[in-house]
Amino acid sequence: MIQQLRSETPGSAHRNHLNNAGASLPPLPVLQAMQQHLALEADIGGYEAADVKRAELEGFYSALAQMLHAAPRNIAFAGSATDAYARVLSAIPWQVGDSILTTENDYISNQIAFLALQKRFGVQLFRARDTSVGGVDVDDFEQLLKKHRPKLAAVTHVPTNSGLVQPVAAIGQICRATDTLYLVDACQSAGQMPLDVTQIGCDFLTATMRKFLRGPRGAGFLFASDRVLQGDLELLVPDMRSADWTGVDTYTTSPTASRFEYWEMAPALVLGSKVATEYALNLGLDWIETQVQNIAQLSRKLLGELPGVQVLDHGDKVCGIVTVYASHWAPGTILEKLTLENINCRVSTRGVAQIDFPKKGVEWALRVSPHYYNTADEIRQLVEVLRREFPR
Amino acid sequence: MIQQLRSETPGSAHRNHLNNAGASLPPLPVLQAMQQHLALEADIGGYEAADVKRAELEGFYSALAQMLHAAPRNIAFAGSATDAYARVLSAIPWQVGDSILTTENDYISNQIAFLALQKRFGVQLFRARDTSVGGVDVDDFEQLLKKHRPKLAAVTHVPTNSGLVQPVAAIGQICRATDTLYLVDACQSAGQMPLDVTQIGCDFLTATMRKFLRGPRGAGFLFASDRVLQGDLELLVPDMRSADWTGVDTYTTSPTASRFEYWEMAPALVLGSKVATEYALNLGLDWIETQVQNIAQLSRKLLGELPGVQVLDHGDKVCGIVTVYASHWAPGTILEKLTLENINCRVSTRGVAQIDFPKKGVEWALRVSPHYYNTADEIRQLVEVLRREFPR
Repeated sequence: MIQQLRSETPGSAHRNHLNNAGASLPPLPVLQAMQQHLALEADIGGYEAADVKRAELEGFYSALAQMLHAAPRNIAFAGSATDAYARVLSAIPWQVGDSILTTENDYISNQIAFLALQKRFGVQLFRARDTSVGGVDVDDFEQLLKKHRPKLAAVTHVPTNSGLVQPVAAIGQICRATDTLYLVDACQSAGQMPLDVTQIGCDFLTATMRKFLRGPRGAGFLFASDRVLQGDLELLVPDMRSADWTGVDTYTTSPTASRFEYWEMAPALVLGSKVATEYALNLGLDWIETQVQNIAQLSRKLLGELPGVQVLDHGDKVCGIVTVYASHWAPGTILEKLTLENINCRVSTRGVAQIDFPKKGVEWALRVSPHYYNTADEIRQLVEVLRREFPR
Repeated sequence: MIQQLRSETPGSAHRNHLNNAGASLPPLPVLQAMQQHLALEADIGGYEAADVKRAELEGFYSALAQMLHAAPRNIAFAGSATDAYARVLSAIPWQVGDSILTTENDYISNQIAFLALQKRFGVQLFRARDTSVGGVDVDDFEQLLKKHRPKLAAVTHVPTNSGLVQPVAAIGQICRATDTLYLVDACQSAGQMPLDVTQIGCDFLTATMRKFLRGPRGAGFLFASDRVLQGDLELLVPDMRSADWTGVDTYTTSPTASRFEYWEMAPALVLGSKVATEYALNLGLDWIETQVQNIAQLSRKLLGELPGVQVLDHGDKVCGIVTVYASHWAPGTILEKLTLENINCRVSTRGVAQIDFPKKGVEWALRVSPHYYNTADEIRQLVEVLRREFPR
């Protein structure tokens, strides 16, 4: 099975790709869908190619709806998870005195966004504390929510800088009980574990295609619940896809999640996203999660057995992102040395984790993010190269 | 020369592509740059491919800077002209009582955006009237500007639904004399005529890659002047590219136009955009403009000679967008009939031109938008098909 999947992943033949939390190696059908559509555009025209492929382009919405247990009307295409997230934040009519409740482990770009809204509109920012095990303290979240009645509760499912999986469904129950607008950033969880928006209880969920979903770079999506679609939230700056210009001084907002879309998209990326989502659905998200759990657990075990190496992932549940640190590793050269051995990893620095890394007492970490197509041998190669290149 | 350019445009061998105001046929080097980068990503990883191609990716900024007579620090990548435009509008801290001054011929999506800002923030909207010839009355624009002191002057250089070219440099002089923030939408002019941001005197200019620049779909850009970069305008929702997270509750905004960018982009589209821009620069925008003027002029002449056909393009200066109407043409079938003959055109409806079309007394128009690679024979073929299929 894994060998079959690797044969459909040409890059895996000569790269030990452990950077799936950065951007995954796409399977061949994803690459082909994009290349073929670009060729068709050059052949008959960009609009004309989209006309021909209308049904397949619509398949993007049904594939993601199926993955999230939603309907196509709830799905919008975006340029990335961050782009999708920004569209949601832009849709909320912020007022002085509004507040946002988040966690200590939310994604860097979300933290910057919250601080920018604080500066622009006087929005207050509250962060629920972590438990001693790691991960947000759900009781503290609930207390802060009841105390401050935030306009938005925002939780990153899996941070970029840690294998932590946040209890988004438990927080969703609290948000639903208090009718609080709830935004989940699933950028790092989409494609490595099942996601059910009803179970999570979120109003919005945003994610990217290029990471564990193995889709294109420059593509992401947004789920908007029927509750949202029945309300009047709309983009700060809607366009002719998000709305209809009905008269000189009037417009109407789209009834579906296309109210969060812009008219122009790259159809090649939409098609690549569709194929990638269907590829994941065919394998099954449950099967994918088990595989990712196994390979990540092995990675933590073998890396943690290296002398002086500290595994940094905390929390009740961890996932396919493995973060490790050793004081005798050199942050400036470690990636170079791995690249020479055709191993792809990433270094996370304090700049992306201003709350998490100081708490863990590190300035940086090596991020190892295997996927279901990675093998135990690949993890062993990484461990051996680290052992050899950085003797203690 | 034209034959050489057509041989580099494979689609032109079997399509009469007169929809360059929709999306142009890209030249082969643009297609190849994208396909090759997608293959490289599948081969070595998406982040790793971007690392390898860093210098070429930077070339996007220098190519567009050269085209606009600006510096690379003034250029930002975006997902489309509309996306770029929305980023600019989101960066302005709107207050009740602020106003926007625009024209009667601004782009549909911009009109919707202004109306949305009116609804959200109570921003007032003023539109300078047209002259009797067509195109904005610069004196009226100046008077409205001095009377209302708008927070933003916004002008679409070339509308999507008419060949009109607005006098953006004359308006720029007025904006500079009054120190008014000035945003030019060059979506339909970029790539068909020279653009000099200093001569135009704008603070922001936005455009797309897929139209007359012959680049990829899903790509656009934004120019931000040094005046803007010296100020404190920033995205409503910045991310880790637009800003640095410097501490738990602090961030700093990027000093360059990357403050208007998001970290994640599709590198294949950035590279395709670079190659497309260089392709236009190699031909020379002056040469391109002359060619486009000639073929558009021929189109207006031959189409206008058809019995009952009305050419709708008004104004002191017109460009490569040709709009025509005849009461005996059927809007529902005209494109089908043209497609059967491998001719690509587009129909514009009143929905995109709520001010312009009622004034012209039409509900729709056939939009014919040739480029420098189109031939007189192709225009003649279009005219013959229209004559044959719609006898009067």
